[in-house]
Amino acid sequence: MKATAIAHPNIALVKYWGKRNIEYNLPAAGSVSLTLGGLETRTTVSFDGGIDADVVELNDNLVDQGPKYDRVAHFLDLVRNRAGIREHARVVSHNDFPTGAGLASSASGFAALAVAATHAAGLDLSDSELSALARRGSGSAARSIFGGFAEMRAGTREDGQDAYAEPICGADHWDLRCVIAVTAHGEKDISSTEGMTRTHQTSPYYDQWVDSVSLDVEWARAAIEQRDFDELARIAEASCLRMHASAMAAEPGIIYWNGTTVDLIHRVRKARKEGLPVFFTIDAGPQVKVFCPAESQTDCELLLRDTDGVRDVLVTHPGEGARLIEETD
Amino acid sequence: MKATAIAHPNIALVKYWGKRNIEYNLPAAGSVSLTLGGLETRTTVSFDGGIDADVVELNDNLVDQGPKYDRVAHFLDLVRNRAGIREHARVVSHNDFPTGAGLASSASGFAALAVAATHAAGLDLSDSELSALARRGSGSAARSIFGGFAEMRAGTREDGQDAYAEPICGADHWDLRCVIAVTAHGEKDISSTEGMTRTHQTSPYYDQWVDSVSLDVEWARAAIEQRDFDELARIAEASCLRMHASAMAAEPGIIYWNGTTVDLIHRVRKARKEGLPVFFTIDAGPQVKVFCPAESQTDCELLLRDTDGVRDVLVTHPGEGARLIEETD
Repeated sequence: MKATAIAHPNIALVKYWGKRNIEYNLPAAGSVSLTLGGLETRTTVSFDGGIDADVVELNDNLVDQGPKYDRVAHFLDLVRNRAGIREHARVVSHNDFPTGAGLASSASGFAALAVAATHAAGLDLSDSELSALARRGSGSAARSIFGGFAEMRAGTREDGQDAYAEPICGADHWDLRCVIAVTAHGEKDISSTEGMTRTHQTSPYYDQWVDSVSLDVEWARAAIEQRDFDELARIAEASCLRMHASAMAAEPGIIYWNGTTVDLIHRVRKARKEGLPVFFTIDAGPQVKVFCPAESQTDCELLLRDTDGVRDVLVTHPGEGARLIEETD
Repeated sequence: MKATAIAHPNIALVKYWGKRNIEYNLPAAGSVSLTLGGLETRTTVSFDGGIDADVVELNDNLVDQGPKYDRVAHFLDLVRNRAGIREHARVVSHNDFPTGAGLASSASGFAALAVAATHAAGLDLSDSELSALARRGSGSAARSIFGGFAEMRAGTREDGQDAYAEPICGADHWDLRCVIAVTAHGEKDISSTEGMTRTHQTSPYYDQWVDSVSLDVEWARAAIEQRDFDELARIAEASCLRMHASAMAAEPGIIYWNGTTVDLIHRVRKARKEGLPVFFTIDAGPQVKVFCPAESQTDCELLLRDTDGVRDVLVTHPGEGARLIEETD
């Protein structure tokens, strides 16, 4: 009844922004992502009849109450219900990268938790089932079940059983690098869930945002299959800017960017005009993720390190899906 | 046949972004502005039978060809046609503030030109007629015909005769200050007209942007009449962010901001939370305009001067409409 899993965060190339159902955490539209090797969450779950509440330790800190604890305990309830068990669990999770800072730690966190907890509970789920389950913890975690490039399906069922990710191509299909410029430390002011809700409720652009996604998903899938960098650059930057624009039009307007974020957008666009194959994407936070082919990684790193306000640069590459690394009775 | 006029730029509190007709330069929606005393264009026009082409001098530089020359000559044609004269004109115009840098120099420029040229041509137009005429040179110039707070009417006629500005309240109604943080010198990469066209043609948010404006215009008018600072702050920031968001969602996305622009947005919002009555607005450029009551002007100036990347700070106040200051035969 003990299992350890590893998962990586992923970065959406066609953005996920908006839910069609809060209870089941169902996305309003699809999305497309790359799972990022080089950053990792490692999570151990053990069910134990001898404890009377779940015990959660994140990055060496005991989390014994509050929204983070509730989120994990609620997720464990889903696993217990499915496995027909009642024991509480010990969860020990480590990220080797900054947590809650717009680096998708909830994606890798809930993907690793889904794999570890289901195995520890004795369940044997398919990847699609694991993906749908991980989605209940964090929408983007559904994609981190798979390595390489993945597509999230919004689904149509009310219970969300058809809302899970599917692989497009494995990690070895296309050796892109995703170079991350960290422009601020610390957790963001407005969580993704809160930002999505406010955008849905108050942005006049929300419906058009959701409508625009399905074409982007089709185009991105084709560009990835054909390894068409320029086309993927076009789609990804447009999707990123439209997502942020939909949030900026909410009331009050949501701005996840800081000054360095915007300086980096301009620098990346300028460098591309000058011939360097790079494009940016930005999640609900101020960090800028820059994609390039493997052979341009050094130039891309230099570009980011050379920008005032960049505090750290992390290099990632296509990574594997969430996986079990140890299991004991 | 010689006349000199003064006009001030204006800053839109409910933004103008999008045209319903290019030839007549008709706005797709209304807008609300404050005319800014403290920055000024002074323009002299003299019609002269002895010259065989219009002569245009802007800020001590002769402009004898190119889009700027054409724009002025085309405007003079409108005046000549209306007055039934054929003489060419000498135009000498000075701005006492940076030109083409997102400080609305085309608004004050064409408002001053409209007043000076029509008087020099012997025309006697009403303010509404002057406003509709100024609009042909620059959409925002229609508002600078009036002092204080003005509302632009989008109109419905195809010939644009009902698309002109009207005063809401005079300059003495409410002693607000508009403190301008200059964050970049030089002319912007994408002109307002080009940005509007691309937004109209490619942004999925354009229609919703246009639809959202009419309520904002009504609300802003009421907030100004009641001198309700908090309400005007809410409307103006939302209108600004929605305008920029509509452009950002175009393809390729249009970003008029630089890093300092975004840093200033965050600083203004933070200062307001901490009790300083301030709000921002930003036109199609990187400069940030911050409104405050007269008694907070010094604190507002300090806030802007204290931000890295701010190159200059200009203080403006409610100004008068465009006016003739000299006329000779």
